[in-house]
Amino acid sequence: MPEQSDIDYVAQEEGVDASKLANLVRAGRAVVVRNLRRSIKPLGIGEGLRTKVNANVGLSPRASTPEKEVKKALVALKHGADTIMDLSTGPYLKKTLSAILRHIDAPIGTVPVYQAFGERGFDMTSDSIFRVIEDQCKKGVDFITVHCGIKREYAKKLRGCDRLIPITSKGGAALAAWMLRTGEENPLYADYDHLLDIAREYNVVLSLGDALRPAALHDAGDFFQMAELKTLGELTKRSRERGVQVIVEGPGHMPLDMIEKHVREQKKICGGAPYYVLGPLVTDTALGYDHISGAIGGAIAAASGVDFLCYVTPSEHYSLPGEDDVKRGVIASKIAAHAGDIVKLGKRGEDDTISEARSHLDWHTMARYAMDEATKQRVLEIADSEPCTMCGDLCAMKISQSFVVSKKKR
Amino acid sequence: MPEQSDIDYVAQEEGVDASKLANLVRAGRAVVVRNLRRSIKPLGIGEGLRTKVNANVGLSPRASTPEKEVKKALVALKHGADTIMDLSTGPYLKKTLSAILRHIDAPIGTVPVYQAFGERGFDMTSDSIFRVIEDQCKKGVDFITVHCGIKREYAKKLRGCDRLIPITSKGGAALAAWMLRTGEENPLYADYDHLLDIAREYNVVLSLGDALRPAALHDAGDFFQMAELKTLGELTKRSRERGVQVIVEGPGHMPLDMIEKHVREQKKICGGAPYYVLGPLVTDTALGYDHISGAIGGAIAAASGVDFLCYVTPSEHYSLPGEDDVKRGVIASKIAAHAGDIVKLGKRGEDDTISEARSHLDWHTMARYAMDEATKQRVLEIADSEPCTMCGDLCAMKISQSFVVSKKKR
Repeated sequence: MPEQSDIDYVAQEEGVDASKLANLVRAGRAVVVRNLRRSIKPLGIGEGLRTKVNANVGLSPRASTPEKEVKKALVALKHGADTIMDLSTGPYLKKTLSAILRHIDAPIGTVPVYQAFGERGFDMTSDSIFRVIEDQCKKGVDFITVHCGIKREYAKKLRGCDRLIPITSKGGAALAAWMLRTGEENPLYADYDHLLDIAREYNVVLSLGDALRPAALHDAGDFFQMAELKTLGELTKRSRERGVQVIVEGPGHMPLDMIEKHVREQKKICGGAPYYVLGPLVTDTALGYDHISGAIGGAIAAASGVDFLCYVTPSEHYSLPGEDDVKRGVIASKIAAHAGDIVKLGKRGEDDTISEARSHLDWHTMARYAMDEATKQRVLEIADSEPCTMCGDLCAMKISQSFVVSKKKR
Repeated sequence: MPEQSDIDYVAQEEGVDASKLANLVRAGRAVVVRNLRRSIKPLGIGEGLRTKVNANVGLSPRASTPEKEVKKALVALKHGADTIMDLSTGPYLKKTLSAILRHIDAPIGTVPVYQAFGERGFDMTSDSIFRVIEDQCKKGVDFITVHCGIKREYAKKLRGCDRLIPITSKGGAALAAWMLRTGEENPLYADYDHLLDIAREYNVVLSLGDALRPAALHDAGDFFQMAELKTLGELTKRSRERGVQVIVEGPGHMPLDMIEKHVREQKKICGGAPYYVLGPLVTDTALGYDHISGAIGGAIAAASGVDFLCYVTPSEHYSLPGEDDVKRGVIASKIAAHAGDIVKLGKRGEDDTISEARSHLDWHTMARYAMDEATKQRVLEIADSEPCTMCGDLCAMKISQSFVVSKKKR
């Protein structure tokens, strides 16, 4: 569990009562993320708190370098990401993770099975998986995705399934294939108590992965997704009994009218545990613009109670993201998170300040809140020299200033 | 009203029954857009039909040329816009509209009061407004935004209002200022029958503008928005009695949890008339990325029954859009419209085809459905030479192919 000083810090950051937050953390409805070995600012995720945004970085055996991935992580933080997951695979995984932990002053997440399967393939064992997990926790990783919910029986059922995309989770696919080949149960499920012991020692937050998340609208809400979620609900309960912080991962691809109902169901099944979703993407057809598809689903999800959004970049489904993809992905998720928070937390943020600035053609204030540097510069140009190109004399703001005396303080 | 052959054409395009569509058109729940003087393909908007997307183009006195605006309109059509509105203001308005009507093979909309106020300012009269309207209808404009619902009494109330942004509609602001200066009633309201006569002659669709739409979350759902909407509901009824096709315009800026309820209310107030919304933007804070804020609101709106989305571009609130802004705005709205249609029409589109292609790493099929040329080329490179950079050997698709034999035809 987190230290009291971390809870106090988060409570102040979020403007919530510290004892109330401590109760939520004890009840497993909120988590405070910081590996006890790391000296970063702790981050709160869960009930009553601002919706957080995660950005995935990480190289693959076929592209990028550790340096490039650090740079992408810095770009993500600059545009408002709250956490970074290093999803590196391949021979430079460890080097990249070390660099990320060294350079990035925010909670870092990983998927340890990428390393475990990468190093030994089908010769992976329960022991080798837990060695990797312990090693990454020792190094300071703050949260780990662990696909504890994909039981052997579910993997067997995948064989002749009706899904359009049987499994899209890399870690989940590796574990499923390993279980079907060895006949053994998923070690992350079978030895869950071992996992809890490691997590507790370092206050590493377990992010219970959804190996069976739908990767196509066609597959949303099906047996696999819901069976795994029920298993995650049971594991959430066990983690609370052992004093380990848990968040639960969710989809994926889902028609927009299913999202609210699904979020409420997850909260019920998992006793109010924080929900961390990837998207959800509300159409499968947005190739090249999946950050927008994900922002639509993410906003609805956040408004419905989701606590943590994993960004989706424009290059989702076809390429490792570059710096510009990372930036666009983070911005889209930040918009979604804020639009959701307006509903979920019942309060607008800087919206009113920006709208008042618009009404007064106060370009300097507008520029201050621009979502990226290029927009800011463009708006400052309008403020300082070049006039607004939109309407000329037919400017609704100017025309209405001639007859409106608002009661609002201007 | 539209010709029978136009109704037949639209019914075939949309895969709906022609006599059912004719009934919907008669009842005012759907419209078929084509000025009888224009030889373009007609477009259906309304109940049971695919959600349509409009792209605004048009120069201002301070930027662009007629040629550039035609090019922007072509870019919009290329990326899937269904209609174009020419919102030009200033001395080149007429030249631009002529060029747009000549070069663009899709329904064209305008806001005639821009020309009427631009030519005569506060010396504008009821006659001069109707002369412009008749002139634009003669030239072939297919639909016109007319701010008939902003009555003099509403304009008076704006004077000391509590809104953060009293009025954001250019046409609405001009009419309000004119009413307050002359003391006269809004001619588009007072002489609505005259407007109906002109519209009927050419089968021009009236798009009843929402001059008082909220331009800030703070102002959403307030007296002004709802009072004007009720007036538009009355005018909708009168237009049906005279055999004139009408769509109704809506916001604007609105928290995402208000959207569904608001759309249902509009449909009730306006007897099921097609609803045409701008956004809605679900936060005021997305400066530089308002196309994403608008896509979030637009998707929820379309799923809730909205029939027609006006795009929002990244340059909304600070600049006339350029070609790239137009492209990004249209794509965002297309994603929103499709995500909405999956819910509203109860059927997926190409989603399943794309998901199956993903499952089989069929890059050629994926490329075919990419949302822009750059993405398509990138995916074709992956297909033809360079491998996918995402996961290397840890590819969930490849791993799962080794153990899954799906029942789906692959």
